[in-house]
Amino acid sequence: MHKLSTLLFSLTLSILLFVSNASVQDFCVADLTLPAGPAGYSCKSAAKVTTADFVFTGLRKAGNTTNIISAAVTPAFDAQYPGLNGLGLSIARLDLAPGGVVPFHTHPGASELLLVVQGTIVAGFVSSFSNQVYVKKLVKGDLMIFPQGLLHFQINGGGRTAVAFASFGSANPGLQITDYALFANNLPSVLVEKTTFLDDAQVKKLKSVLGGRG
Amino acid sequence: MHKLSTLLFSLTLSILLFVSNASVQDFCVADLTLPAGPAGYSCKSAAKVTTADFVFTGLRKAGNTTNIISAAVTPAFDAQYPGLNGLGLSIARLDLAPGGVVPFHTHPGASELLLVVQGTIVAGFVSSFSNQVYVKKLVKGDLMIFPQGLLHFQINGGGRTAVAFASFGSANPGLQITDYALFANNLPSVLVEKTTFLDDAQVKKLKSVLGGRG
Amino acid sequence: MHKLSTLLFSLTLSILLFVSNASVQDFCVADLTLPAGPAGYSCKSAAKVTTADFVFTGLRKAGNTTNIISAAVTPAFDAQYPGLNGLGLSIARLDLAPGGVVPFHTHPGASELLLVVQGTIVAGFVSSFSNQVYVKKLVKGDLMIFPQGLLHFQINGGGRTAVAFASFGSANPGLQITDYALFANNLPSVLVEKTTFLDDAQVKKLKSVLGGRG
Amino acid sequence: MHKLSTLLFSLTLSILLFVSNASVQDFCVADLTLPAGPAGYSCKSAAKVTTADFVFTGLRKAGNTTNIISAAVTPAFDAQYPGLNGLGLSIARLDLAPGGVVPFHTHPGASELLLVVQGTIVAGFVSSFSNQVYVKKLVKGDLMIFPQGLLHFQINGGGRTAVAFASFGSANPGLQITDYALFANNLPSVLVEKTTFLDDAQVKKLKSVLGGRG
Amino acid sequence: MHKLSTLLFSLTLSILLFVSNASVQDFCVADLTLPAGPAGYSCKSAAKVTTADFVFTGLRKAGNTTNIISAAVTPAFDAQYPGLNGLGLSIARLDLAPGGVVPFHTHPGASELLLVVQGTIVAGFVSSFSNQVYVKKLVKGDLMIFPQGLLHFQINGGGRTAVAFASFGSANPGLQITDYALFANNLPSVLVEKTTFLDDAQVKKLKSVLGGRG
Amino acid sequence: MHKLSTLLFSLTLSILLFVSNASVQDFCVADLTLPAGPAGYSCKSAAKVTTADFVFTGLRKAGNTTNIISAAVTPAFDAQYPGLNGLGLSIARLDLAPGGVVPFHTHPGASELLLVVQGTIVAGFVSSFSNQVYVKKLVKGDLMIFPQGLLHFQINGGGRTAVAFASFGSANPGLQITDYALFANNLPSVLVEKTTFLDDAQVKKLKSVLGGRG
Repeated sequence: MHKLSTLLFSLTLSILLFVSNASVQDFCVADLTLPAGPAGYSCKSAAKVTTADFVFTGLRKAGNTTNIISAAVTPAFDAQYPGLNGLGLSIARLDLAPGGVVPFHTHPGASELLLVVQGTIVAGFVSSFSNQVYVKKLVKGDLMIFPQGLLHFQINGGGRTAVAFASFGSANPGLQITDYALFANNLPSVLVEKTTFLDDAQVKKLKSVLGGRG
Repeated sequence: MHKLSTLLFSLTLSILLFVSNASVQDFCVADLTLPAGPAGYSCKSAAKVTTADFVFTGLRKAGNTTNIISAAVTPAFDAQYPGLNGLGLSIARLDLAPGGVVPFHTHPGASELLLVVQGTIVAGFVSSFSNQVYVKKLVKGDLMIFPQGLLHFQINGGGRTAVAFASFGSANPGLQITDYALFANNLPSVLVEKTTFLDDAQVKKLKSVLGGRG
Repeated sequence: MHKLSTLLFSLTLSILLFVSNASVQDFCVADLTLPAGPAGYSCKSAAKVTTADFVFTGLRKAGNTTNIISAAVTPAFDAQYPGLNGLGLSIARLDLAPGGVVPFHTHPGASELLLVVQGTIVAGFVSSFSNQVYVKKLVKGDLMIFPQGLLHFQINGGGRTAVAFASFGSANPGLQITDYALFANNLPSVLVEKTTFLDDAQVKKLKSVLGGRG
Repeated sequence: MHKLSTLLFSLTLSILLFVSNASVQDFCVADLTLPAGPAGYSCKSAAKVTTADFVFTGLRKAGNTTNIISAAVTPAFDAQYPGLNGLGLSIARLDLAPGGVVPFHTHPGASELLLVVQGTIVAGFVSSFSNQVYVKKLVKGDLMIFPQGLLHFQINGGGRTAVAFASFGSANPGLQITDYALFANNLPSVLVEKTTFLDDAQVKKLKSVLGGRG
Repeated sequence: MHKLSTLLFSLTLSILLFVSNASVQDFCVADLTLPAGPAGYSCKSAAKVTTADFVFTGLRKAGNTTNIISAAVTPAFDAQYPGLNGLGLSIARLDLAPGGVVPFHTHPGASELLLVVQGTIVAGFVSSFSNQVYVKKLVKGDLMIFPQGLLHFQINGGGRTAVAFASFGSANPGLQITDYALFANNLPSVLVEKTTFLDDAQVKKLKSVLGGRG
Repeated sequence: MHKLSTLLFSLTLSILLFVSNASVQDFCVADLTLPAGPAGYSCKSAAKVTTADFVFTGLRKAGNTTNIISAAVTPAFDAQYPGLNGLGLSIARLDLAPGGVVPFHTHPGASELLLVVQGTIVAGFVSSFSNQVYVKKLVKGDLMIFPQGLLHFQINGGGRTAVAFASFGSANPGLQITDYALFANNLPSVLVEKTTFLDDAQVKKLKSVLGGRG
């Protein structure tokens, strides 16, 4: 132990020296005020990173399901949770009131792993190969995987509120709900009809509901 | 030059020796008879690879557009063109007769770069961010990029047949046509309706057209 | 609608034709009986894939915490849940009885996103840059991210059993518990001591507890 | 439909709320005025992105082939076509007058997929394994793949101008023409000779033609 | 040759034109003064890049081994050697005086390939699978690979100073020395003990030696 | 300690149970007898992996430099050193007798980091951007980086044998020596001349030296 003590000073010195040259890329907490790049946001200065950057408490409470789909999707992606930036992971909370539904949608940037933590959920996806459908009723503790970019949905499968958490293999997986992509913008109805085979009345009805024009 | 000549034997020897130990991963032509893995197909034995593996002539001719969409999409993905395996690129030919349309679809595995080589095409995509629509009329020589996984479409924009080639940043980008995913399988109508907001009559009509059941 | 009906046959034909040539890489369910490669397991034949491959029910029940750490880690990695193969995601269930602890460990292959679903957990990690410690007491609904490869731990922070789910950005993130790596094998004590600065008595005590030899 | 109407307001609200927090990484149109990083250029502010960013019309016209190689290569890489940034794809137009040639070159950053759209082209590449040559005469509609980094060339194979488009699996594949790398700079002739086995007269002749010094 | 001469002007013109539009991503020398991103540092302006950016002379001399471990690790990572930025490679020099040791540590971001260039080194790593130990005495010219993120160590295996170079598959592989992560910070002793099974006296002794508090 | 002893059995049981389900992807030692895939070779069964798989002694001795280039390149790529498979790293030994040269070449699959361990080496590379040359005389301990796919060379820069080790960011970086690609195969001289601007006599001379035909 004596030898240890006498060498403490030189050790500390050499370690500090080493560290002072080291890069700080254990993580890259997003600085949302700087321009992003294809790999994500710029990193916040290491000196300003605190424990709070790595913790997210925004999913403690249920989302508001008093809406047309009786459901809420609350994301914890990099834009909400900057500590995830560059780490290839994110999560979202799903609250499904009785009768609630997350309509057909895709995540362009990642696969999704769904975990049911309360209630019952009927979930499904469609493969691009022969349009095969994979549907399952899930209970608490069950997992279902939705491969990247494929259309999938979740529906409350029981009489009480269901809760699930969806993990994604990207800090920013994206979310494209088919109905909103088709009916909640100014894409002219004639173009929607031509590219979906839907009837004019159907298109206009949904545009009206979802706030689309044209 | 004399020195060169006298040393030729030893050089040849050393080069051959070197090469005999070298791995053969300049390319990995798919052997479609072996099991695939997450990164693509197994490689054909190098000894059996020929120039023909790197060339594809299947896009010389127009696809058959005598169908409901007056359009044909002919893929040259790794399953059709094994030389692409592992190289992160593929292509497809689009033939659009007058009135032809490639309905709303996504490619789950890659972005698409469209090149018009004949006629006029109206193409568009919808972002997942605020469902913004980007639509453009393209003429011969024009390019349009469709980011990975986002809904997009192509329509013949003129009075004569249009031809385009779509490049993809994956040897196997996938193709999910929304209508076929929703209406060309056995997903029960009640589930389709609940997850799309579409009316029952509309769903059943399209299921009938596209061969769906349930 | 009449036009649709009359064209149904040719459409179906053209679609089927297209699909029959398409590759099946929406997913790559692991065939655990075939050799793996650097990117994961070989894919199960598409014809044999069923909904069951995408669903995992093995995390419904708590793991057995009647052990030295009063804790259980139950993985749903690709080896347990073959549907995850190639999709870059996995998950594990943590059960922490009162006093339970998941000792310092790393995941060599992925970052971890921890979600507390019951009770209270004190979790922390150490950066490689200046050995900074980030520790936080987490309650139900809280998230904490542990960047790839960094040492971290979880401890029950309350008087009752805590449950959490840890998502990973890899189908096979690995798990190296430092104590088991040091003391649960036949690495000679003298080597352990020299490479850890630990005293001989300490090393031998833990080797005895954890089943190490040498 | 009544229920839909009455719930429209809350729906719109919840969707807008969601969207306002969402990240905008469907795409990352390059801002060429900001510093780039290893993954590409910084993203232009989403608010300033328009359809024009995703469309490129610069390849409509043939390049000028009145030059020593009777050929022109016109790139549509990220620097010319900022909408490609981060999407892993780009393209270039090849115009080959009769007798035209694209000399031996490599693309350090991506494989190339060549599509002939007019005339006849003789193309080839050399593997690094045993220096195997793969050469083919291609006609309109034919494809040939050149694996990443390997030496390849294209020559007009007929009596009239040929046109092709080369797709790349990177938004910035690079282009290194061997002759220009060897003879169009100030690398001293003695070094060129020693590292290529070429005769002094040959090196000096080509340096003179291509503008090299030393 | 005459034809070549007369066409020189147009050639030079066309080449320059081409080049002026080309992107400069052959490399991305780090500008350490700008914010980094998940893929590394921002690139220095191409006009300011010189040969010196690609050369590093900081490993010529031995590191100072007059310290507690009789060893020195001198990194040439991107922070020290900005030319490596974005290129996926780095290196470090290991000097081990007689009795010297690089204690158990991990590199969170890359595998390591060790090359002994002087003396004898005993090196080893522990797998996460069944805690298997792989140890070997290496002499000059020998290589050993340590897979990403796994615990490993190096010890001088002879009577004279040993030197080795460790290559990494990342420009910034990180370095987490287990002892420093556990004992060289302010993580409370009670937490260290609970998460390592170590005795209180052992923890406090090492905290004292390594400068930890709490 | 008593509590530890009594709980040993249950702990051992739970750990073993856990491990028996774990996947074995800490590493993927190549089984060279099985078909490879785009990501590398298939993995050897974990039960058959030994320490010898991770150690390579084939670079202890100098390569034979009695040849036309007075140089030898000895690779330790995955085909020679199967333990590297999937780990993204490899290395090669360069021996340069006085006057020795490694002619202009590229590595299609990885950047190279050169480390001089004996003697003096003049090394250089050419960027694809404006054909800029970066050349430097390196002494023992110096490093130089050659970005992926760019033409580079190494020459003995002194009067005695030089030795260097080149690390690569891929287990299989490839090696394409320009002269061998052009002159050591059956590519017809007329094609070589047309695609390189070289004179017929020069081409035929080098074909003769390097064993080419045509």
